[in-house]
Amino acid sequence: MIILIDPKISQSALHDLYRYLSDIGVLANPCSGGLRLEGAVERLDLPTLTALPGVLAVGEGMTLPLVQRKEDTEHSVVRVGEASFGKDYVCIAGPCAVESAEQILRIAHAVKSAGAHVLRGGCFKPRTSPYTFQGVGAEGIGWLVEAGKQAGLPTVCEVLSVEDLPLYGSVDMLQIGARNMQNFALLRAAAATGKPILLKRGMGATVEEWLASAEYILASGNPNVVLCERGVRHFATSARASLDLTTLPTVKARTHLPVIVDPSHACGDGRLVPSVALGVVAAGAMGLMIEVHDMPETALCDGPQAVTPAVLAELNGKIKRLGEIL
Amino acid sequence: MIILIDPKISQSALHDLYRYLSDIGVLANPCSGGLRLEGAVERLDLPTLTALPGVLAVGEGMTLPLVQRKEDTEHSVVRVGEASFGKDYVCIAGPCAVESAEQILRIAHAVKSAGAHVLRGGCFKPRTSPYTFQGVGAEGIGWLVEAGKQAGLPTVCEVLSVEDLPLYGSVDMLQIGARNMQNFALLRAAAATGKPILLKRGMGATVEEWLASAEYILASGNPNVVLCERGVRHFATSARASLDLTTLPTVKARTHLPVIVDPSHACGDGRLVPSVALGVVAAGAMGLMIEVHDMPETALCDGPQAVTPAVLAELNGKIKRLGEIL
Amino acid sequence: MIILIDPKISQSALHDLYRYLSDIGVLANPCSGGLRLEGAVERLDLPTLTALPGVLAVGEGMTLPLVQRKEDTEHSVVRVGEASFGKDYVCIAGPCAVESAEQILRIAHAVKSAGAHVLRGGCFKPRTSPYTFQGVGAEGIGWLVEAGKQAGLPTVCEVLSVEDLPLYGSVDMLQIGARNMQNFALLRAAAATGKPILLKRGMGATVEEWLASAEYILASGNPNVVLCERGVRHFATSARASLDLTTLPTVKARTHLPVIVDPSHACGDGRLVPSVALGVVAAGAMGLMIEVHDMPETALCDGPQAVTPAVLAELNGKIKRLGEIL
Amino acid sequence: MIILIDPKISQSALHDLYRYLSDIGVLANPCSGGLRLEGAVERLDLPTLTALPGVLAVGEGMTLPLVQRKEDTEHSVVRVGEASFGKDYVCIAGPCAVESAEQILRIAHAVKSAGAHVLRGGCFKPRTSPYTFQGVGAEGIGWLVEAGKQAGLPTVCEVLSVEDLPLYGSVDMLQIGARNMQNFALLRAAAATGKPILLKRGMGATVEEWLASAEYILASGNPNVVLCERGVRHFATSARASLDLTTLPTVKARTHLPVIVDPSHACGDGRLVPSVALGVVAAGAMGLMIEVHDMPETALCDGPQAVTPAVLAELNGKIKRLGEIL
Repeated sequence: MIILIDPKISQSALHDLYRYLSDIGVLANPCSGGLRLEGAVERLDLPTLTALPGVLAVGEGMTLPLVQRKEDTEHSVVRVGEASFGKDYVCIAGPCAVESAEQILRIAHAVKSAGAHVLRGGCFKPRTSPYTFQGVGAEGIGWLVEAGKQAGLPTVCEVLSVEDLPLYGSVDMLQIGARNMQNFALLRAAAATGKPILLKRGMGATVEEWLASAEYILASGNPNVVLCERGVRHFATSARASLDLTTLPTVKARTHLPVIVDPSHACGDGRLVPSVALGVVAAGAMGLMIEVHDMPETALCDGPQAVTPAVLAELNGKIKRLGEIL
Repeated sequence: MIILIDPKISQSALHDLYRYLSDIGVLANPCSGGLRLEGAVERLDLPTLTALPGVLAVGEGMTLPLVQRKEDTEHSVVRVGEASFGKDYVCIAGPCAVESAEQILRIAHAVKSAGAHVLRGGCFKPRTSPYTFQGVGAEGIGWLVEAGKQAGLPTVCEVLSVEDLPLYGSVDMLQIGARNMQNFALLRAAAATGKPILLKRGMGATVEEWLASAEYILASGNPNVVLCERGVRHFATSARASLDLTTLPTVKARTHLPVIVDPSHACGDGRLVPSVALGVVAAGAMGLMIEVHDMPETALCDGPQAVTPAVLAELNGKIKRLGEIL
Repeated sequence: MIILIDPKISQSALHDLYRYLSDIGVLANPCSGGLRLEGAVERLDLPTLTALPGVLAVGEGMTLPLVQRKEDTEHSVVRVGEASFGKDYVCIAGPCAVESAEQILRIAHAVKSAGAHVLRGGCFKPRTSPYTFQGVGAEGIGWLVEAGKQAGLPTVCEVLSVEDLPLYGSVDMLQIGARNMQNFALLRAAAATGKPILLKRGMGATVEEWLASAEYILASGNPNVVLCERGVRHFATSARASLDLTTLPTVKARTHLPVIVDPSHACGDGRLVPSVALGVVAAGAMGLMIEVHDMPETALCDGPQAVTPAVLAELNGKIKRLGEIL
Repeated sequence: MIILIDPKISQSALHDLYRYLSDIGVLANPCSGGLRLEGAVERLDLPTLTALPGVLAVGEGMTLPLVQRKEDTEHSVVRVGEASFGKDYVCIAGPCAVESAEQILRIAHAVKSAGAHVLRGGCFKPRTSPYTFQGVGAEGIGWLVEAGKQAGLPTVCEVLSVEDLPLYGSVDMLQIGARNMQNFALLRAAAATGKPILLKRGMGATVEEWLASAEYILASGNPNVVLCERGVRHFATSARASLDLTTLPTVKARTHLPVIVDPSHACGDGRLVPSVALGVVAAGAMGLMIEVHDMPETALCDGPQAVTPAVLAELNGKIKRLGEIL
């Protein structure tokens, strides 16, 4: 049994809560976001407990009280600049990696024209091999932010370690990548910045684990999480990852958080991206994250999975008309 | 190295072919659809060989010469009644299992009104356990065909064994189910009926294996194959199967055969079906196979994954408008 | 609710059973192996029902009453010639495919000397592509049986279709391959021969499905089933299939049937076979099925996964000493 | 193309290397462990390049020059206290989580008596949910180290974040857990401590990715890596993870690093552990990591997957005799 507690609970309210619990013989151990209860939990009177000042929610077992959707709850809306994830269709676009000030500025203007709402671009890249391009580093963050400003787009950038977080002060949204989905120290530290978090699903993660990682962020006091599906490992290797379409309605039924999809990493081939992107939006994705490069053949990282700005513009045009059907 | 040979090749042309091969020291072993070559294959002159009368194609290794798409080939169109798979959007609909003459007639009219083009209904059901409902059997085939006639719909019905094939004379299209995708005896015998074949993907099959099973049918002289994706096994059990959206464009790039999707079996839950169905069509599926029941809660088989005729009608309405965008 | 009935039940006993059920308002529908009950099943008195003559067992839901292990049941022993699966370590060995009378005779003597107890060799081969070697066919069965006789080994041979069954009259054990694990018509027809059945696990099958397929055979009145694990599909393609070691103790805890392992198909590389084979026996496999060829480089089918008779002899020597530890 | 460079290369040797490369028109970009080459790499004379002072190795593409096994290389041996991974069988044992000074001391003596060579015990626990027990924290590390000293066992402990590393000064070996296998910042920082690293395989990681993560550590100048397989995700959920037995010989063929197995996490059930443990050692695992608790039913974390010290003693006895066979 878990009690979620308002981080701004008053001392006297906290005192009342502990007294209520100890009076009936329930042990309370602090945990992230509140208290874990043990002992005579059958004596709890849930309405009384829930009504105590500072008590946000009471849940059982492996529940995720902050992430789970309650019947009477509206969808959460996460704002990044003028984009509203969970309310409107949001398109995040940009290169896999920031390569130079010129490159990211050029692409920023191009994706803005093609209908994008948020600019992406990796500066520290998590790469399987230590010998492949690891990103331009700290300098690139400045280039990204400046490009976003000039093109009128908020920015999202992946963060790889707690130590790097101070470099991201001007970035609008922090991305936690698939490989770090269960890097709990990073989840907590990123949450503490107060910035909106884009949480990608791990390549071997179940939906339950993905939502539980989101719960870490919410339990740290940051409600602004956008979930991003990017495909999982599977035995049939026609594309890079398996983008299971049944996941979308399943996740949306479980959580009030906005869910978007990154088809570029799942496909690993830009030629597959437009049809897959249209498919996931038709199936209910609330947004897309698309890798775009104006010269894919020269990209320092993952060029083959990028699409051109022209392809993105055509895709966004179709999605607009799709929205009128749905 | 494989040579595909026209089944109607003349004796003299066959003789010429064998002489050409033996003259240059190439061994020719008969295989399904033609000859497998061994020995001095480096001496083959491909233009000469391909120009010989009765030689349809020459391929190497694990190629699938009949199923693979050549650059200059149009999509294949498979006609079943007035439905044209590969040309128009085709909706197959009906109950998981035929239960009675009344049930299938009632549902036939309902799905016709809801925009379906082909009527489905299983009579012999392949069930994991020997103790669950195995279908009404041979009698049901007559009910299905009669219901199709009265509602003006051609019919498709799954066949489980070679011995049952004579019962399917009045059915318009034979379905080979996921569990029998590599039941090669059944593939060959079904092909020999000349009827169009709906070939479902096995739950643990790669795309390559699925296409190779289609090649068995084509190599048996029956070109009328429609591929039906129904999801594969995966580790993340949010729904019954994983319906990987990257598969569709991958398969369509490899083969000229029409590809449709069965979202009902992948979802295992009728509430997920409409959004998933819309998604796969937006991503390029050329048709759908949907389980429909007018009283899902009383269905003898797989009731929870069925949708009602009203839901189907709404879905087909959206798909029509979607077609104007794509 | 399922009632399993002795196939040799007397007419009067069957009459008494039906009367008992109808008197309390329970509907009884024939199913494979017995009756499926519906209606007022809460009125059943299980001790009374179980005590009726001809009633073998009563089970609920998706249970597998014949395959499941009861606490007080000994392991089943399946005899094939002088080999006793489930009692002693049994080694099945031989080539992937029978190629000629000479080849199988030569290998039969070699594997006998190397400690094998049963001779294998495929005559009809299930191949992914229609253009690869499909086996020597019916003639090979005679060669296999004769080789077994001369070497003093019983034989096992894979059967692909119901129509081929009459050809297998002299074979001692029938193999149902991975691709046909859910070919229920074949399971029933093979069971009806009364011969012991070697049932391989499907490449995408769960343990539950594998056991349910065994239940089809037992419910058809044939108790002599040996389960053979051969690995399943997975995302990490270091070898051909994933041979999950946790499966063995899990399956053995669920069923009384003997369980052996085929490491050759899982590895797809003869160099990996000895260590994997030793590992599965140490983990509790009751036998092995190993592909052996005296000239792997010239084998018509799956040569790279075969080991030589010398390697098999060394492996069987180690396994004998391993048995003293376990 | 990658050049691995000795971290202690002299300035003049580095200068010579750069001059050689620029003279022939090859671009050299610093990367972890050396230089990544681009441009006119076809002009490189490999014998000349390899012979230059300070050049350790030259590799191509996605190769892992430090981790890969060269034909003429002996197995690496990693020493932790008196244990020699890669030379002798090494048994790591202890509780999932350190709970108190008394608990870890008691279990340390018990596993020492049962034949263990290294003591394990988690202090910071990575848990899927933020509401489950997260470990006793920094205090526990002192308890673990003291228990190891008193029982005469070196210690291994999992580290979750770069910031926590200073707390691990007295621990003999650092464990990088499955969830952090691609937390590259942590890999580099842990490597920099100079301590031996136990690198677990991620739950969705391929063998290639696992080895590439080890390459990060070696490329950071720390050669003391022990690989630990713990099973991966799969579709068949009989146990917690799939412990594919074909992985062991595959990994051992690719790398000179020692490879051990953790059957406890793969099984998730202590009753399955002994047979699986024996199986992996018979198949070539060079050691085991086993969770042991003297009172599994009261463990704060993962009690059901622990075995008792008595079970461990029996297992280690069997493994000793197994060693005489192998």
